[in-house]
Amino acid sequence: MRTLFHLPLDPFSRIIRVVMAEKQLEVNLIVEPIWERREAFLSLNPAGTVPVLKEPDGSIIATSQAIAEYLEETIQAPSLIYGTPKAKAEIRRLCSWFDIKFNQEVTEYLVGEKIMKRFLGLGEPSSEAIRAGYSNMDTHLSYIGYLAEHRSWLAGDDFSLADICAAAQLSCLDYLGDIPWEDYQEAKHWYARIKSRPSFRSLLDDYVPGTKPPSHYADLDF
Amino acid sequence: MRTLFHLPLDPFSRIIRVVMAEKQLEVNLIVEPIWERREAFLSLNPAGTVPVLKEPDGSIIATSQAIAEYLEETIQAPSLIYGTPKAKAEIRRLCSWFDIKFNQEVTEYLVGEKIMKRFLGLGEPSSEAIRAGYSNMDTHLSYIGYLAEHRSWLAGDDFSLADICAAAQLSCLDYLGDIPWEDYQEAKHWYARIKSRPSFRSLLDDYVPGTKPPSHYADLDF
Repeated sequence: MRTLFHLPLDPFSRIIRVVMAEKQLEVNLIVEPIWERREAFLSLNPAGTVPVLKEPDGSIIATSQAIAEYLEETIQAPSLIYGTPKAKAEIRRLCSWFDIKFNQEVTEYLVGEKIMKRFLGLGEPSSEAIRAGYSNMDTHLSYIGYLAEHRSWLAGDDFSLADICAAAQLSCLDYLGDIPWEDYQEAKHWYARIKSRPSFRSLLDDYVPGTKPPSHYADLDF
Repeated sequence: MRTLFHLPLDPFSRIIRVVMAEKQLEVNLIVEPIWERREAFLSLNPAGTVPVLKEPDGSIIATSQAIAEYLEETIQAPSLIYGTPKAKAEIRRLCSWFDIKFNQEVTEYLVGEKIMKRFLGLGEPSSEAIRAGYSNMDTHLSYIGYLAEHRSWLAGDDFSLADICAAAQLSCLDYLGDIPWEDYQEAKHWYARIKSRPSFRSLLDDYVPGTKPPSHYADLDF
């Protein structure tokens, strides 16, 4: 069986969990406390980050971008990066948007300050950083709403890796109760469609000790 | 002809310039002052970032990751993401390393503070950030040296997108004279091999007003 080293509130780990569930791959999930910088783990991935995928033959694949492309190349159905080269470029453009821009402008400020800082022993959350994260969220939720209004899914007619990358980020913030959904109805409806997919179910069952999600987090009718 | 909106000291723009030169594609380069947030440019790429590629048919492809994969899919030779799915995953793992980890831990602190902050009108460089950038560089130059010692090129036997992503970051820092090459001989030899490739030539001719590169920047015998 495959093994995935992950962290429950890490958006990049969540991307791969959903990709694997969409492709109906069984996986043994292992929580990796990356802040301990375990030598055995660093020998698998010197970057010290999750997710890391261990294949049944012992091969190691690291970073969510490389794992997603690898699974796409080796397990064709269902395709999550599909269509013409230009259609694929649109999917990948949005993946970069959420993996890099959204992560840096919102998730690192909120999940980073409220959760990771505690585990890394880096002190109290900075209220300035948290304010910046909330304030940056508006552009992103509006953009998701705009895309969801003009297309069936974020990158086009079908569900794709772009939806997964966006939902992985949002689901971590939603666990913290940080998303003002009522002000963003289009984004909320798009996210409700993602939440109801079976591939998303295991994320909704996550529990991080010391931090309880709001009741709507796993509510499919919210 | 193709058009690339870019910035001379932006590592992501440099990646695509080298990829296009390796694939012998002619391109019309346009410097895009992203700090002006021109409406015409934002309508091409709402993220407001470079690089953005405009194809002869008017199609727009944005983010270096999406453009590199797109060019790889549409212009096969020479292949820059090659081999088995696992070999490709190793190339993409290293691309993520340099695009995300190196960029965040080193380039944003140094090029970001010394150059972009000036253009963005964000005030004086922070000496704390600059110190952090220098201090983080050691791990990365050592890792490049380690890879270059054990493999012909960073990801394996052949030159790949991983070498381009790494060299694009380093070349921006080298323009600022920020790399202590003498302490990292393996990395220095690997970079000298990259510099001597014809695809790298146009980067060595770059000139950013107000900031002159050190004499070794474009010296192929350094």
